[in-house]
Amino acid sequence: MVIMAGAKPITAPGWTGTERTSLALIDCDVHQTVRQIEDLFPYLPRAYRQQAQEQGIRFPGSGYFNVAGDAARTDLETSCDRDGHNIRKRDYNFDEVRDHHLNMWHVDYALLTGASVYGASILPDPDFAAATARAFNDYTLEHWATKDDRFLIAMAVSTGDPRTAVEEIHRIADHPQVKAIMLPTGNRMPYGNRYYHPIWEACEQHGLVVGIHPGNEGAGMAGPPTGVGYPTYYIENRMARPQMAMAHAVSLIAEGVFEKYPTLKVLIDECDQFWSVGLMWHMDADWKSLRDQTPWVKKLPSEYFRGHIRVGSQPMLEPENHEQFFQMLEMLHADETLVYSSDWPHWDWDDPATTFPKLPEHLHKRVFAENAREMFGL
Amino acid sequence: MVIMAGAKPITAPGWTGTERTSLALIDCDVHQTVRQIEDLFPYLPRAYRQQAQEQGIRFPGSGYFNVAGDAARTDLETSCDRDGHNIRKRDYNFDEVRDHHLNMWHVDYALLTGASVYGASILPDPDFAAATARAFNDYTLEHWATKDDRFLIAMAVSTGDPRTAVEEIHRIADHPQVKAIMLPTGNRMPYGNRYYHPIWEACEQHGLVVGIHPGNEGAGMAGPPTGVGYPTYYIENRMARPQMAMAHAVSLIAEGVFEKYPTLKVLIDECDQFWSVGLMWHMDADWKSLRDQTPWVKKLPSEYFRGHIRVGSQPMLEPENHEQFFQMLEMLHADETLVYSSDWPHWDWDDPATTFPKLPEHLHKRVFAENAREMFGL
Repeated sequence: MVIMAGAKPITAPGWTGTERTSLALIDCDVHQTVRQIEDLFPYLPRAYRQQAQEQGIRFPGSGYFNVAGDAARTDLETSCDRDGHNIRKRDYNFDEVRDHHLNMWHVDYALLTGASVYGASILPDPDFAAATARAFNDYTLEHWATKDDRFLIAMAVSTGDPRTAVEEIHRIADHPQVKAIMLPTGNRMPYGNRYYHPIWEACEQHGLVVGIHPGNEGAGMAGPPTGVGYPTYYIENRMARPQMAMAHAVSLIAEGVFEKYPTLKVLIDECDQFWSVGLMWHMDADWKSLRDQTPWVKKLPSEYFRGHIRVGSQPMLEPENHEQFFQMLEMLHADETLVYSSDWPHWDWDDPATTFPKLPEHLHKRVFAENAREMFGL
Repeated sequence: MVIMAGAKPITAPGWTGTERTSLALIDCDVHQTVRQIEDLFPYLPRAYRQQAQEQGIRFPGSGYFNVAGDAARTDLETSCDRDGHNIRKRDYNFDEVRDHHLNMWHVDYALLTGASVYGASILPDPDFAAATARAFNDYTLEHWATKDDRFLIAMAVSTGDPRTAVEEIHRIADHPQVKAIMLPTGNRMPYGNRYYHPIWEACEQHGLVVGIHPGNEGAGMAGPPTGVGYPTYYIENRMARPQMAMAHAVSLIAEGVFEKYPTLKVLIDECDQFWSVGLMWHMDADWKSLRDQTPWVKKLPSEYFRGHIRVGSQPMLEPENHEQFFQMLEMLHADETLVYSSDWPHWDWDDPATTFPKLPEHLHKRVFAENAREMFGL
């Protein structure tokens, strides 16, 4: 890869050329993965390794096409396998993240949100699923966490048997870089369901954020990716992400998760942002009429949202003009709810310098650092 | 029912006490229904009538609780069956609609959006489903349409076999009061799917609007009401409506329905409004990157939305202040996309006088009359 002269944003995303003295940039969505799925084999029990060698890992797929080149930035040439198009042959490697992301943009912390094993939660066999999540965590701790203390880890868990997720959380949650768990949007039940509560209890106990990120939509046991069945095209699948984010957020609030686990925080990445606004307004109005049906929801739904749910900035919605952009941020209470996410190294990633218009300094600090710092307890 | 003295809004929703000389108020969602499901029997073929007499009509239900009193306004006492709580025993009767809605609010036209047979589309037997839709239409034409020429009819159709819907459209679409078809949000596939195209073709041929209204979420063959499975409570089911509206709107645009049927109009009632804004912004941005995958989508998705999709005002979202209300209306392009809907006589209905803050006169006319007039070709 060739770096063009002058392309490096010397001071972005800070505001001056002076030395920085505090956290300025936390990126809540950076993907790491294995170079090839076989990289997980050393971390798998022998029985599953043997099955995987003979039959492949068999994560379910949804059948929706993605972009050409399978989702990664084509400017990151070293990450592309020039001989094929299998994403599992790609190398989201450490040198690239360091040189072309952490160092280039002066990222203070980057949450590694994984890839590869999102499908574990919709695998039929919960023990195999748990083994793949555990293997990916061991791989991440060994090959990523050790290399740079700017990495925060959103550990993989699978939900097929919540007890396996709880065990895995207890096993590694006290690692100083582990700050979250990562779950896919696509799953069999919305995340407020009591089925998942033991996982939330373990997260609260260890101070882990519950991360939710697109994945598994319409695949395996996840069911259709919309409330009206299977759409046809990739763009529709992408547009289903805000819908799934809404369903999870509503469920978490309506089932009283934030009353039961009052310090729990949820990060919803890569589902855009504006669904949050209509949801808060609509759910608040409905709650006023219907709260006798869910008496454990003691406050306005928007209060739970603003207190507990954080939305990642990528893909940052593009209003028709800057005025609407700022109106949207105010409606969203972005100073509380919005965190910067790059989605590095995917094709539709958002860099920290050009994604936003110039924000007021207070809001800039909240979005690019403070909201995430508070969420992760840094 | 007792009318309180002074309760009648003399001039609402007009702007002066002077005589009105043009269309001022079109209500795009007024429910009519049968007093009891047996009222449909005279219109059913003998075989189905016999089955229904022996086994009931058997429309699928979803198992979600609704509000006490089963959804209707308790102030409309004559519509309540004081001996029971079965909505099918309720009488949404003509006298009430005339006295306490059409006359009270000076409604010029009211779209009768039905009830009772929304479940036809998710019945397993497509011929029985078509027979119930046909029976409901015959009942509506005989007992409602004839009584007041302010009624416009959104005719019932079922989608289990699109050919039956096409036949029913050809049968009655030229009745001067029939202006739309009515479909439930909950169905097996999103409405852009090619499966439905023969229905859209027939609608375009007869100038009928395609109406979509909440119904069937999670019931019968409709599948789960969210993209992440079945939520637990009624409020979650209500919050799934914007999600389903998004899925249908995205599908209609992505599958090129409005290129194939360039005069087709779609009315989405009772799903709130603000989902439209994020959807237009997000889908426009995605389309710029992905349009090679759906080359029949020739314009920005928001252009199709603004040109072809209309959203009903009920339930009108309640922003934190009037300033945000007007910002939202602008982002929504409400002067093109928003139509007034009351959802009469349901408990969460919105009256035409107090639901909105005072709108600028041009916008008022568009929302309360002109957008609907153009949609229905009045």
